[in-house]
Amino acid sequence: MAKPAYLTGDKAGIESFIDKFDTFLFDCDGVLWSGDHLFPNVPETIALLRNKGKQLVFVTNNSTKSRADYKKKFDKVGIEAYEEEVFGSSYSAAVYIARIMKLQAPKNKVFVLGETGIEQELESEGVPYIGGTDDSLRREATEADFKNIANGSALDKDVAVVLTGLDFHPSYLKYALGFAYIRQQGAHFLATNIDSTLPNAGSLFPGAGSTSAPLVTATGKDPLALGKPSQAMMDAVEGKFKLDRKKTCMVGDRLNTDIQFGIEGGLGGTLAVLTGVSKKEDFLAEGASVVPSAYVDQLGDLVG
Amino acid sequence: MAKPAYLTGDKAGIESFIDKFDTFLFDCDGVLWSGDHLFPNVPETIALLRNKGKQLVFVTNNSTKSRADYKKKFDKVGIEAYEEEVFGSSYSAAVYIARIMKLQAPKNKVFVLGETGIEQELESEGVPYIGGTDDSLRREATEADFKNIANGSALDKDVAVVLTGLDFHPSYLKYALGFAYIRQQGAHFLATNIDSTLPNAGSLFPGAGSTSAPLVTATGKDPLALGKPSQAMMDAVEGKFKLDRKKTCMVGDRLNTDIQFGIEGGLGGTLAVLTGVSKKEDFLAEGASVVPSAYVDQLGDLVG
Repeated sequence: MAKPAYLTGDKAGIESFIDKFDTFLFDCDGVLWSGDHLFPNVPETIALLRNKGKQLVFVTNNSTKSRADYKKKFDKVGIEAYEEEVFGSSYSAAVYIARIMKLQAPKNKVFVLGETGIEQELESEGVPYIGGTDDSLRREATEADFKNIANGSALDKDVAVVLTGLDFHPSYLKYALGFAYIRQQGAHFLATNIDSTLPNAGSLFPGAGSTSAPLVTATGKDPLALGKPSQAMMDAVEGKFKLDRKKTCMVGDRLNTDIQFGIEGGLGGTLAVLTGVSKKEDFLAEGASVVPSAYVDQLGDLVG
Repeated sequence: MAKPAYLTGDKAGIESFIDKFDTFLFDCDGVLWSGDHLFPNVPETIALLRNKGKQLVFVTNNSTKSRADYKKKFDKVGIEAYEEEVFGSSYSAAVYIARIMKLQAPKNKVFVLGETGIEQELESEGVPYIGGTDDSLRREATEADFKNIANGSALDKDVAVVLTGLDFHPSYLKYALGFAYIRQQGAHFLATNIDSTLPNAGSLFPGAGSTSAPLVTATGKDPLALGKPSQAMMDAVEGKFKLDRKKTCMVGDRLNTDIQFGIEGGLGGTLAVLTGVSKKEDFLAEGASVVPSAYVDQLGDLVG
């Protein structure tokens, strides 16, 4: 596989790289920012691409925020971006459930293990749900819970899907219910994404793949994941934004989600940044399985 | 592999089977009881074996209870048993940390993800610990937590072991701390046991392997498990009870923990009961990889 081009400090290389594409898909966490820390020159880079007439799409696996939440975050950190440019894994999952699975009401309810981002996107697609941020599930499991889950009386018979995302409020009760919906009631097991870790505060924390791992271990099944690198997400992005894959570049910090997502999707290019999870050694090594077309130390290097 | 003998209703078969052994190792959950439900004729079966002069050891992977807690449970359900006959995975882990790892104080602290059973057994072996049932960790992770975990200031520098067991009170903060101790501080990753499920109320719930799965996924590492079928536990049981393995029988409901534990330990026999996780189809099928020497529908059939 060809070695990726190193573009930091290479003005001519950057310009010819940017000129190849009409559309840039951006991962957010680890690319634009880490938690509340904005990386240098990111607003300027986004402005540069807009000035060149590029279409921008923010393709994020973070399921805790809705598109509306993302718009607020962009405003807060001073990046020009629009709600309709955001395509999150929660939205991807909601679209999949509502438009692809097309479950017949009333047996179309979703049991959510995750945060408000998932709930908002399910609501936007008219999908009924329980669980999620419901405070009544953030408590100790009682003997009555064990009994009523075992005999099914604590289960909502209309739940046909268990959807997991990053959950900052896991509880044994929630895991026990999710397990019972899948095992006893035959619910479909979906995940917004399965990233094992979450970049934050310049370090790594458990990601959606980790907080949903108890259900994977208990059921012995892997969920259908609807975030990157799932091509269900690429298809949905392409359908919504009418992009030309050969003139599209995916920008991200993770080889096994972002860069793989772009390569498997047949995009014209992929750009890795070194401000997140993957290190350059990961793709420069002999025999590396996922290699971007180019890389920069940080996204802001595009404006030098 | 030889088909197992079916002993239910076979009085002569039962008598000759029992006569082969001096010592019986019993799993508890799924064998003696399921949660608070005692199976029929269990106290009578235990009494029968005691009358025949057998040594009894209760070898359990349930890490939520200490040996003292188990004694209380035996008393409550009316089974004659003694604290010194109980050998739990929490005790096994505490013994391993204290006597095998022999970490030098002060860098010998254990971060616990689990319940009071683990804490009591660590205390009994003089091992310092944090986490566990500490209420202050059963809360939302704040931005300050993310920052202070990332920069290490929220971490106890003396933690050298992360020990996971069944945790009925998981929290994102606890998982984030456990992950940081392993990843940033190089702590050893141990588990009392890794059973994926827990039999209770006649059904199955997430087990220790499930509640500790977020750390497995986040770190990409498997813990050293000190419960069944780990032979570290068999060695410890043998050392404590001076048993003759060839004259010892393991009784359990799970092929991949209990029965495998007995077979790998070179015991004289294994007896499966059908009141828990594994079904007879699992070991009667052609090519089954773990097959007990004998089985009964339920333990009480030994006095049937």
